[in-house]
Amino acid sequence: MNKAILKVNNFSISIDGFGAGPGQDLANPLGINGMSLHQWFFPTDAFQQMTGRGRGTTGIDNDFAVKGLERAGACIMGRNMFGPVRGSWPDDTWRGWWEEDPPFHCPVFELTNHARASVTMRGGTTFHFVKEGIHAALQQARQAANGMDIRLCGGVSTIRQYLQEGLIDQMHLAITPVILGAGEHLFHGIDMAGLGYKCIQSTPSDKVMHVVIAKGE
Amino acid sequence: MNKAILKVNNFSISIDGFGAGPGQDLANPLGINGMSLHQWFFPTDAFQQMTGRGRGTTGIDNDFAVKGLERAGACIMGRNMFGPVRGSWPDDTWRGWWEEDPPFHCPVFELTNHARASVTMRGGTTFHFVKEGIHAALQQARQAANGMDIRLCGGVSTIRQYLQEGLIDQMHLAITPVILGAGEHLFHGIDMAGLGYKCIQSTPSDKVMHVVIAKGE
Repeated sequence: MNKAILKVNNFSISIDGFGAGPGQDLANPLGINGMSLHQWFFPTDAFQQMTGRGRGTTGIDNDFAVKGLERAGACIMGRNMFGPVRGSWPDDTWRGWWEEDPPFHCPVFELTNHARASVTMRGGTTFHFVKEGIHAALQQARQAANGMDIRLCGGVSTIRQYLQEGLIDQMHLAITPVILGAGEHLFHGIDMAGLGYKCIQSTPSDKVMHVVIAKGE
Repeated sequence: MNKAILKVNNFSISIDGFGAGPGQDLANPLGINGMSLHQWFFPTDAFQQMTGRGRGTTGIDNDFAVKGLERAGACIMGRNMFGPVRGSWPDDTWRGWWEEDPPFHCPVFELTNHARASVTMRGGTTFHFVKEGIHAALQQARQAANGMDIRLCGGVSTIRQYLQEGLIDQMHLAITPVILGAGEHLFHGIDMAGLGYKCIQSTPSDKVMHVVIAKGE
């Protein structure tokens, strides 16, 4: 039996290693020029269909996008990926960026310092709010996933926390030919080799270099 | 008339951004696993012929290798690229890694803290030793190059010094699908966007992603 894994998919970084640009705010949720990291992803058929825009491109980029968007047993994400609200929740009106039928279709565990009751959306997505840290969130996600893989959606600081503890089993990165100069650096100060990570696959498309990193045995 | 530029060619970095591995010594001049960065380069026809091994591979990697090895008007390199001797020169016996006919065929300016008389090799290469810092070396190289481009050969810390001053006009990097985990990081702490650098070309081969970074106008 395959062991269920914790994985990161479709995660783009710049040539200089940033997963988000500087100056993140409501107008620039991915930071300045952060959107430029995802130009391989947006045109894909997987993304276009997911967002109700019709058909998109096929090929290597779409193959990765499709695989990366496959339904997981559970998801984990940092609170800033869930929305722009900071501090304690003023009320329950914010229900994520994704409208009533979010594209997860599974339990999603939101890391936060502020308690909140779970929110059930359409299509099988339920947002749970975990105050007890990354290990507790992973434990709850594992239980909810019931043997299926768990997807760690981001953002950068959440991925860094899980990486530093060696808890991520597999990451798919899209190395994107842009320079951001500043922002949130994915790997700085994390000894990926020391933690046992290796690059196990590299597949260039005409836009990015897709790489898969995994923990060795 | 084109302005002569300062350029970096055929420079490999890992997925996590290192241009050399940790623990550099005589047995590992590129640091632990540092050689793995250059597996796209060694098989190329350009490298194989340069090192007298016969013919090598052709294609995208070789095209970049050929262009990167074109004769420049002058070269600049850090002292550790010239050889393993540290501190003051005990004598004049060390004449570089390259035997009697080094592959530069032009004046080569070595950054060092320790004065030494110039060394003339076969084939047009002369090693000059510059104690007065990176600006002085660039000035001398520009004069010697007589209107031709100047190649900055490395290593990482030398390239970082020139980058931080915004003195490099163009860099060709080969982003290589390996994880080093530690070593000499090329970009850490350098705001490449703030310095005006942009990615102007991206060409994947089956082994690496070649990118060209240049200063905007």
